[in-house]
Amino acid sequence: MEVLRGIDGDAGTDVLASLADVSPELAHQVAAWGFGEVYARPALPPRERQLVTLGMLTALGGCEPQLRVHVNASLNVGLTPQEIVEALLHSAVYCGFPRALNATFAAKQVFAERGLLPVAPAAPAAPAAPAAPAA
Amino acid sequence: MEVLRGIDGDAGTDVLASLADVSPELAHQVAAWGFGEVYARPALPPRERQLVTLGMLTALGGCEPQLRVHVNASLNVGLTPQEIVEALLHSAVYCGFPRALNATFAAKQVFAERGLLPVAPAAPAAPAAPAAPAA
Amino acid sequence: MEVLRGIDGDAGTDVLASLADVSPELAHQVAAWGFGEVYARPALPPRERQLVTLGMLTALGGCEPQLRVHVNASLNVGLTPQEIVEALLHSAVYCGFPRALNATFAAKQVFAERGLLPVAPAAPAAPAAPAAPAA
Amino acid sequence: MEVLRGIDGDAGTDVLASLADVSPELAHQVAAWGFGEVYARPALPPRERQLVTLGMLTALGGCEPQLRVHVNASLNVGLTPQEIVEALLHSAVYCGFPRALNATFAAKQVFAERGLLPVAPAAPAAPAAPAAPAA
Amino acid sequence: MEVLRGIDGDAGTDVLASLADVSPELAHQVAAWGFGEVYARPALPPRERQLVTLGMLTALGGCEPQLRVHVNASLNVGLTPQEIVEALLHSAVYCGFPRALNATFAAKQVFAERGLLPVAPAAPAAPAAPAAPAA
Amino acid sequence: MEVLRGIDGDAGTDVLASLADVSPELAHQVAAWGFGEVYARPALPPRERQLVTLGMLTALGGCEPQLRVHVNASLNVGLTPQEIVEALLHSAVYCGFPRALNATFAAKQVFAERGLLPVAPAAPAAPAAPAAPAA
Repeated sequence: MEVLRGIDGDAGTDVLASLADVSPELAHQVAAWGFGEVYARPALPPRERQLVTLGMLTALGGCEPQLRVHVNASLNVGLTPQEIVEALLHSAVYCGFPRALNATFAAKQVFAERGLLPVAPAAPAAPAAPAAPAA
Repeated sequence: MEVLRGIDGDAGTDVLASLADVSPELAHQVAAWGFGEVYARPALPPRERQLVTLGMLTALGGCEPQLRVHVNASLNVGLTPQEIVEALLHSAVYCGFPRALNATFAAKQVFAERGLLPVAPAAPAAPAAPAAPAA
Repeated sequence: MEVLRGIDGDAGTDVLASLADVSPELAHQVAAWGFGEVYARPALPPRERQLVTLGMLTALGGCEPQLRVHVNASLNVGLTPQEIVEALLHSAVYCGFPRALNATFAAKQVFAERGLLPVAPAAPAAPAAPAAPAA
Repeated sequence: MEVLRGIDGDAGTDVLASLADVSPELAHQVAAWGFGEVYARPALPPRERQLVTLGMLTALGGCEPQLRVHVNASLNVGLTPQEIVEALLHSAVYCGFPRALNATFAAKQVFAERGLLPVAPAAPAAPAAPAAPAA
Repeated sequence: MEVLRGIDGDAGTDVLASLADVSPELAHQVAAWGFGEVYARPALPPRERQLVTLGMLTALGGCEPQLRVHVNASLNVGLTPQEIVEALLHSAVYCGFPRALNATFAAKQVFAERGLLPVAPAAPAAPAAPAAPAA
Repeated sequence: MEVLRGIDGDAGTDVLASLADVSPELAHQVAAWGFGEVYARPALPPRERQLVTLGMLTALGGCEPQLRVHVNASLNVGLTPQEIVEALLHSAVYCGFPRALNATFAAKQVFAERGLLPVAPAAPAAPAAPAAPAA
């Protein structure tokens, strides 16, 4: 639960609280297994877990409530709004525009709640290819 | 095309070559738009784009050929086999075990081709919560 | 239509009624084919059809309206709230937590409308493995 | 942008406008690549592109906002409400009833806004097989 | 069955024949309901049903066997290889490149079997916007 | 592991064994969490868990390897081939024919391996509505 609170903040604990009268066991498994057993493993830092998670939730579709929790979590572990927006732009290549648009509007809602709009555009690409700077 | 070759290596260019007699325009759009317009943007480094991509391809399902290309690409831009395997373990929480298993077996095939098996397990989790190391 | 009314109750017939001015043929096919030709077949009892259906609607995602109809239907054919909640917990293993959470909240809405909250937790697991009680 | 406005009308440009403060680059790519590079290609007329698109958005699920934009676009390029409804009935065979129902209700919302309800049913099928009437 | 044979040819009837010893009822429902009740309706011609179907099967993913049957069917009802390839290029905008690539390779397999490779590229786009030819 | 072996038999343990050199942690989580924590809960018997699982795997698509494991498991916990085939026919209503066909062919492969072909068709439906035989 500490891991979860540190990453998701109130948004995550609110979701679990709302399970209390319908499926406390599901709440327990999200916290104990999802966060305790998997998320807390040190082999990948929270920032990178969030990038994988944003990709998955965008691709799955229909996961806007979870996207909002995880956009919040992504900000909490150090991703900037620009980086989140870039990850969702990147998702258009693999999932198509509808999924990318839905995810971006879910992120916009979180940014609005946290007073982070407008998102400053990322700096324009330098002319040289950035993927192989030393080649 | 340089961006693509730098990241995907031969696996990516082979896919595009096999489109030449059926849909050269799709090959052109993958290279020109997917890689030239989106991937090459500096707002997110290749390593982090690959983490988002691994998450998406795992979640989409039925994308084993693309997963193999992108596991290769992930190794090319500096992710270790342990980190890739950890991202796919993480995906089980959000996509369920079947998608995580299919993606892990696709990764295993690439690791085998590159002589990277067995993958050494990640170091066991330290007792303290890793998400907030300084707290 | 009798089969449909017996299983889905008003929730199902309301859906079909709202199709009357846009696609009466789709309403006809849901009733005549979905319920008349397939659902009514005796080879699987309604209770077991509902379990398969809950699994499918959870896995598909974005089917919360249909989940509400089928949680109602599941109660109508004899599944208890505990069993429904357990099926959705089970779904987390195969579809991941986001789908399981969305489905559980759809179920919670139906339970609330029918005065079935809070759902009493299932009895804790007995120490012996239940899958092979005699082994 | 002209292609987009000609096809999607205000619904499409409103979506892009709402991206201005969160991901102007995504708006740019939808317009420049999605519409400028792909949609505008003459190899398939807009009417037929819309049929493919309605099929995809129905199958993806969770794309009701995009479906509403594209039902509008489909009307704009000459598909009739009957043809749209028929395409969505057809989708039930390949995607199942839940996806077909969700898409039909999204279409109904657009038809209501444009004063196109009730949709007159398509003429009943002639007794002879329509797929090969004379050949 | 006549409708099915006229559209799908041997590929479709082979699928149904291979169901005979496992689920003759599913074969019956594909033929009687999918083709007899829905496909044969005159409100949308076979050519346009195939475009919707190609979109759906591409978006669903994991339906390469069905895509091969329906690429064959699309050729049988008058779509050209160029139009099929264009529909699949179009799908990249909505479903992303992985689904578009998988579908294009399934189509390539059918084109190869029917001696239709290489597919001649569509004529380059005329400078004027094709979506509004009279403007 | 005992629960898993009792249900899945060799097919399940083979999958886990093949993870040993790539992701032993994923194998551990499938066994410890999927089977130990969730599957073994007595609130739903194995037969009914398998019905939910067959529905999910069919709906997800691209999970043919997992379907084969779970068709085996379904037979092991007492479902008959006829009941499995009926569940997959039922899935066509909710997931469409392509997913139902892919799942049925995966089941056929398992039935062939276990000498269970041909599957005797279910008894034809009695004229009275089976959903409410006595009410």
